[in-house]
Amino acid sequence: MTTTAARPGLVSAHGRRTAERFTESALVTDGRLLPTERLDAWLAERAGVNRFAVQRVPFADLDGWRFAEDTGNLVHASGRFFSVEGLEVRTDFGRTPRWTQPIINQPEIGIVGILVKEFDGVLHCLMQAKMEPGNVNTLQLSPTVQATRSNYTRVHKGSAIPYLEHFVAPRAGAVLADSLQSEQGAWFLHKRNRNMVVETTEDVEVRDDFCWLTLGQIHELLRVDNLVNMDARTVLSGIPFARPDGPARAVAGDDPFRAALVESVGGRRGALHSTVEVLSWLVEAKSRHMVAQRRIPLRALEGWRCGDDVISHEADKYFQVVGVRVEASSREVSSWTQPLVAPVGHGISAFLTRRLDGVLHVLAQARAEAGTLDVVEVAPTVHCLPGNYRDVPAEERPPFLDHVLSVDRSRIRYEVLQSEEGGRFYHAQNRYQIIEADDLPLAEPPGYCWMTVAQLMSMLRLSNHLNVEARSLVACLQTLW
Amino acid sequence: MTTTAARPGLVSAHGRRTAERFTESALVTDGRLLPTERLDAWLAERAGVNRFAVQRVPFADLDGWRFAEDTGNLVHASGRFFSVEGLEVRTDFGRTPRWTQPIINQPEIGIVGILVKEFDGVLHCLMQAKMEPGNVNTLQLSPTVQATRSNYTRVHKGSAIPYLEHFVAPRAGAVLADSLQSEQGAWFLHKRNRNMVVETTEDVEVRDDFCWLTLGQIHELLRVDNLVNMDARTVLSGIPFARPDGPARAVAGDDPFRAALVESVGGRRGALHSTVEVLSWLVEAKSRHMVAQRRIPLRALEGWRCGDDVISHEADKYFQVVGVRVEASSREVSSWTQPLVAPVGHGISAFLTRRLDGVLHVLAQARAEAGTLDVVEVAPTVHCLPGNYRDVPAEERPPFLDHVLSVDRSRIRYEVLQSEEGGRFYHAQNRYQIIEADDLPLAEPPGYCWMTVAQLMSMLRLSNHLNVEARSLVACLQTLW
Repeated sequence: MTTTAARPGLVSAHGRRTAERFTESALVTDGRLLPTERLDAWLAERAGVNRFAVQRVPFADLDGWRFAEDTGNLVHASGRFFSVEGLEVRTDFGRTPRWTQPIINQPEIGIVGILVKEFDGVLHCLMQAKMEPGNVNTLQLSPTVQATRSNYTRVHKGSAIPYLEHFVAPRAGAVLADSLQSEQGAWFLHKRNRNMVVETTEDVEVRDDFCWLTLGQIHELLRVDNLVNMDARTVLSGIPFARPDGPARAVAGDDPFRAALVESVGGRRGALHSTVEVLSWLVEAKSRHMVAQRRIPLRALEGWRCGDDVISHEADKYFQVVGVRVEASSREVSSWTQPLVAPVGHGISAFLTRRLDGVLHVLAQARAEAGTLDVVEVAPTVHCLPGNYRDVPAEERPPFLDHVLSVDRSRIRYEVLQSEEGGRFYHAQNRYQIIEADDLPLAEPPGYCWMTVAQLMSMLRLSNHLNVEARSLVACLQTLW
Repeated sequence: MTTTAARPGLVSAHGRRTAERFTESALVTDGRLLPTERLDAWLAERAGVNRFAVQRVPFADLDGWRFAEDTGNLVHASGRFFSVEGLEVRTDFGRTPRWTQPIINQPEIGIVGILVKEFDGVLHCLMQAKMEPGNVNTLQLSPTVQATRSNYTRVHKGSAIPYLEHFVAPRAGAVLADSLQSEQGAWFLHKRNRNMVVETTEDVEVRDDFCWLTLGQIHELLRVDNLVNMDARTVLSGIPFARPDGPARAVAGDDPFRAALVESVGGRRGALHSTVEVLSWLVEAKSRHMVAQRRIPLRALEGWRCGDDVISHEADKYFQVVGVRVEASSREVSSWTQPLVAPVGHGISAFLTRRLDGVLHVLAQARAEAGTLDVVEVAPTVHCLPGNYRDVPAEERPPFLDHVLSVDRSRIRYEVLQSEEGGRFYHAQNRYQIIEADDLPLAEPPGYCWMTVAQLMSMLRLSNHLNVEARSLVACLQTLW
């Protein structure tokens, strides 16, 4: 890091002013550059211009992919991309002390980044209409950049990834958010990406498939099923917001939920637990639990079937591994094949919330998953594939699942079907829900903690505190002021 | 976590007031309970009462320890305690792309904790005079509690560790600091302990070998060679301090270094880099570098000799593994044998500092070591065994080492020989130095960053940001206001 002069007072001033500017952008629901009324047409146009066909194929038809002779792992001949291996988990977390499962191993840190710039004094985000093979609807709105390490380490030789130069050091813009964040612990071993928001003041050429949107516009799009992709949601979750004051949100005063949300974002008062207590709760969970992960050969899995075109669990639960062939007109490579992980059925990710002294709190869980990097991360109140629990007695079902499944619809403040990463997951959708639960007791079961949105935001400045489903929910929650 | 009522405003108030109370304790240099003038006599008395004899023995004489047949690893028959194994490291950090070495594997999180309590309105720390086999001087001042996981998981069956009940949930006291922190990355694989400070208002029986000291008294003791042990220093480093104002420190105004240190602790102005920039610098280092660690059999080491009573490097550099027999009168077990890691020669750990606009900054390094959990941690400007580099050309020696070795003594503000953990390391001492270097350029070499004491303190609230040598130096730096 090189700097030319001392900048007194920058620490707090920089942080507060940045958060205020993001809040201002979120309150602008029509863009200066691409008006909201033209957005649907633009997305339809991009979908029409770019051809993208995805077809399920047997593993034998995957080019360059093979099952390694010694382990049975599904690997690429180049040693690049990723591999599907076996994992044995032994843990005292949850009800299952030991299991084996397939897992994606991709030991590298990618970059997902949003470039932002002020137009007429309002921050806009450069978003991309991007196709991924696993998307149910092919095209979704993605961050400016999604790059693997091999993409960005060769950047100075000229990269195929547009705008990557804004994110790789040395960079001209100002870094407004930068952290390492995990991907799905149920399907990935220790995988994480660098989540970045970088502001530029330079002229930026807007290429095909890209557009500038305000955060207000993106928040509207987050209320549409399967439109804002997972990488966009996780980067958005790291954006700090100041308390949304002023006339634009005066209406919140009539709605106790929204008024409490505004207080919770502001963070000036009323957290049930101090920051020291919240961090201590997470340390306690990491100290109390043991998660021993051991990579094993894919062929050593117990209870899984490996067929010609699918790897699946013998009870048809959890997920499958499948192969696809992709034909694309808009990508650097026009045709390729690859494996994808396909969950069995839709998942649920829900935050239960309640007002405490006029401040909204969410009930977070410290949760261990198969591939979690450091024992546990902060997770939604409920996250699971409900289908896995249909034949399970009530007392063995995840805590609060039945509450979420049976809640009166009037208590659901947010319910949108969102997709997980279409580059690795096939038709993976979770029903993201934010639910009013003011009748829940204040006393937290072991491993759960009531926290404010401001506390979640402060942890989102740090690496590896919130898991990917919790981050998506925070991005969604910010649309409800 | 269970709570009975909302506590508005607790987040900031709790944090600020706690820091002010710690600062007040640090300004009290004489204790209400054990006056400083009686401290030497008390330590001498404890050393006299307790018998403790340590003797080097061949590995064959270690009871219960053996070299495993398949791997040659040095293990205990019970599977408990720890093992000495082999590690292969491949990395693009530093000048050596690959090496193998012995490493201590102890995959569990222990607790190191200091119990604090107010007497006459001043916080006092409950410290222990404790003997460890690897200490050069047998007895050092340690935290209230040093407990392994097996100690504290059996706590409800009655523990041999005094005061442990104050640290294990559910606990009656208030947690003032709580984080997971690493141990020596050069010698330990992924080892870390839970560092805690807990305040009690209950009556506490003071057992033999324990005493209540103010932080001011402990700060005086931190200026004595090999007296405050490593576990105490790492817990102390996590204590937050408010700006030391008031008449007691008026003298600082005459000394530009001390005045700049007071500003740096206060953190109200003048950090060269914003917090976002400092965190981004660390993320950048984690993303840029690769550290691949692979456990290998001890007998597969290259360049190491395994003798009857020592495992050593063929160039006699780095460290050795040795065996000791211990006879103790003050421990729950009166006699035992164990292996220890013995570094070759004394180490140096130094922070170079400079005043920037009247605010003290230290030059921190993002450093990868053999056993680091997550690529890099924030480390001193210089940390090494200088003996390893005697025959190495200047351009291949660690950056700033020659600056530290040749600095004018008038620029050294702190220089004390401190011991590393005597339960695992044999006669391991580092010369901890804090050096004025106002002639250093502001421009940072890659991997280095100027930061304030307030920024170091805010990272010390979090787990796994500063390595153990940097934490020791922060504890020492706080004695210089």
